[in-house]
Amino acid sequence: MSNMLDLDNLISVLKNVVVKNRVPFSLHEPCLAGNEWKYLKDCLDTGWVSSVGKYVDKFEKALAEFTGAKYAVAVVNGTAALHICLKLVGVSPGDEVLAPALTFVATANAITYCGALPHFVDSEEKTLGLDPRKLVDYLKDIAAVTDAGCFNRQTGRRIKAVVPVHTFGHPVDMEPLLELCQSYKLDLVEDAAESLGSLYKGRHTGTFGFVSALSFNGNKIATTGGGGAILTNDQEQAGFARHLTTTAKLPHRWAFVHDTVGHNYRMPNINAALGYAQLEQLPDFLKRKRSLAEKYYEAFRDFEGIKVFKEAPFARSNYWLNVLLLDENYVHLRDNLLVLTNDQGIVTRPAWTLMSKLSMYKGCPKMNLEVAESLERRLINIPSSAGVA
Amino acid sequence: MSNMLDLDNLISVLKNVVVKNRVPFSLHEPCLAGNEWKYLKDCLDTGWVSSVGKYVDKFEKALAEFTGAKYAVAVVNGTAALHICLKLVGVSPGDEVLAPALTFVATANAITYCGALPHFVDSEEKTLGLDPRKLVDYLKDIAAVTDAGCFNRQTGRRIKAVVPVHTFGHPVDMEPLLELCQSYKLDLVEDAAESLGSLYKGRHTGTFGFVSALSFNGNKIATTGGGGAILTNDQEQAGFARHLTTTAKLPHRWAFVHDTVGHNYRMPNINAALGYAQLEQLPDFLKRKRSLAEKYYEAFRDFEGIKVFKEAPFARSNYWLNVLLLDENYVHLRDNLLVLTNDQGIVTRPAWTLMSKLSMYKGCPKMNLEVAESLERRLINIPSSAGVA
Repeated sequence: MSNMLDLDNLISVLKNVVVKNRVPFSLHEPCLAGNEWKYLKDCLDTGWVSSVGKYVDKFEKALAEFTGAKYAVAVVNGTAALHICLKLVGVSPGDEVLAPALTFVATANAITYCGALPHFVDSEEKTLGLDPRKLVDYLKDIAAVTDAGCFNRQTGRRIKAVVPVHTFGHPVDMEPLLELCQSYKLDLVEDAAESLGSLYKGRHTGTFGFVSALSFNGNKIATTGGGGAILTNDQEQAGFARHLTTTAKLPHRWAFVHDTVGHNYRMPNINAALGYAQLEQLPDFLKRKRSLAEKYYEAFRDFEGIKVFKEAPFARSNYWLNVLLLDENYVHLRDNLLVLTNDQGIVTRPAWTLMSKLSMYKGCPKMNLEVAESLERRLINIPSSAGVA
Repeated sequence: MSNMLDLDNLISVLKNVVVKNRVPFSLHEPCLAGNEWKYLKDCLDTGWVSSVGKYVDKFEKALAEFTGAKYAVAVVNGTAALHICLKLVGVSPGDEVLAPALTFVATANAITYCGALPHFVDSEEKTLGLDPRKLVDYLKDIAAVTDAGCFNRQTGRRIKAVVPVHTFGHPVDMEPLLELCQSYKLDLVEDAAESLGSLYKGRHTGTFGFVSALSFNGNKIATTGGGGAILTNDQEQAGFARHLTTTAKLPHRWAFVHDTVGHNYRMPNINAALGYAQLEQLPDFLKRKRSLAEKYYEAFRDFEGIKVFKEAPFARSNYWLNVLLLDENYVHLRDNLLVLTNDQGIVTRPAWTLMSKLSMYKGCPKMNLEVAESLERRLINIPSSAGVA
């Protein structure tokens, strides 16, 4: 059996870690063991359930404090957060926005909501995220920087921004990306939907971009049922984010005057109450998820044909979703592995289909995506809840 | 004092109704006196807080049953519901969509999200909503009907749909509007955000349109914190609504394939749990709100210079927000009345600024809006909660 990937053995090792650590067999489920009841009941008792209420303020303050961002604006979900972030930096119809091909569809959708086009970028294996060095080489070939910004010489369109995604919680290599943004006059919008609690060189992901998006969907490390948030250090942008997410209504005692096309994107108070209770438990969730990741890593350390993804040296990951990577010569076994695990109730899933392959994004500009394509073939997510351990 | 509007007396009559009926002084606040806590607690106990969960199903079923629509699809808010409704009927970039100038901004915004332009229509005083007879006369002048649909002869753009809004809960005169839609090949999308529980000739508003939008915002007759729903009798449209609101992901055991640009618009389970408890109380809310409306009507029956709006003969209104209408010769007193009432803690507010006056919609096509303009000058909303009575 040496020099062979032994599927049965793989599943038994996987199961062993999960069972021994009492990890739920699902991919990621919420852990509601704190003050969730207390705060929700408080909302009902006071009648404050909607988008004005003290838990929205509390949640935003706790989030700003935890991440080190100056301002946090709570919204209905991560997609809405990213949509507003892109509007805040001025992404406009006809623009291109650089984003990884290997991401959840919301990243590309939010770009499309602005009338802009995603321009797909390759990933690197050490972070699973956007490869800034490969991107800079690519931009040397295709981009022209003028006083008016960065332009795609092939399409003539403006390249307005770049959206790194901290995939499965693992931080992108931000330093070279920040340099690239400066050289090419690109706005940096971080899609930190998956990386609450993840640090790059000691600094929280989502605090590097001019504005950044977080998610609190039910499958995330901390949940508000459905929810998201915008992070920024810029007071004016925070104010404008609040304005745009509350129908752009001008403050007035009673008059209804709105000064631009706004959105109904604010987080209701009951969702924020849940989130506030979740944030109190976040340090504990992070500790438990890190411990689970280490156990997976150890269990598969010498396993032939597969490895567990480990954070890069500059990163401290939240390990939102743990990742198995098949060696390239075993990728034909991926679907077998998915069937066998899911049949036994251990929920696993492959990488998202690359955005560049989806029917509505097939025609969008893209660079060579060979690493993303390799990761797409090789990657499997395994159960990763903080669980009950 | 005869032939004069006596402001002090008006306020004392208003206050008398409110105080005697123990109506909260706010415009509309939620009444959370049912099973809200029981159902929320159940969500926490079972760990189902997010967008999959039994309360979403229960809420949708209860909503369909109550309204008589075959299908209800729960979403994050009324704006999202209307956005999806417009996409479902095929509103496309460059289209025009007929909508009242007198409405909340979300109606016009949802049209804009589709890349279409609102085309503003006048209201009639007997319903406070879109005037179908005036609209048909207008269309005779400006529209041309071809095999490809209805076109605006002045702009050359397609007029794809008409969006009546049941303003403050009062049903639009639907019969002539349905005829108009047929003659002019217009799709009917009802904005029933404010009219849950309101009937037109015995049939629930929101069941006339091919698809319709409801809202469960915190200020509505029934709330989910923030929320909305799409109603339709068409199974295929209901399925497509579910698909579009859940990122357009194709069903598969694990693969992530999305076949169009979708949205993250589904209602989380905790919000649906709240809404399910609210729907159980809705018949009671309706009874209490009708009784309050009758008391307002009686109190101001012989009052000089002002009247309380009463439902049209064909309508049974939910009386979401009660309406005072000043006589045209007293409109100069409106702001005084707003100041005096709000200063005493009785929340009142004027009509929304007409959409055609907002900076972002100034350039949009519109018909003569004289009735809407008159209503805008004369209308005041007064406290209307189901309250504790």
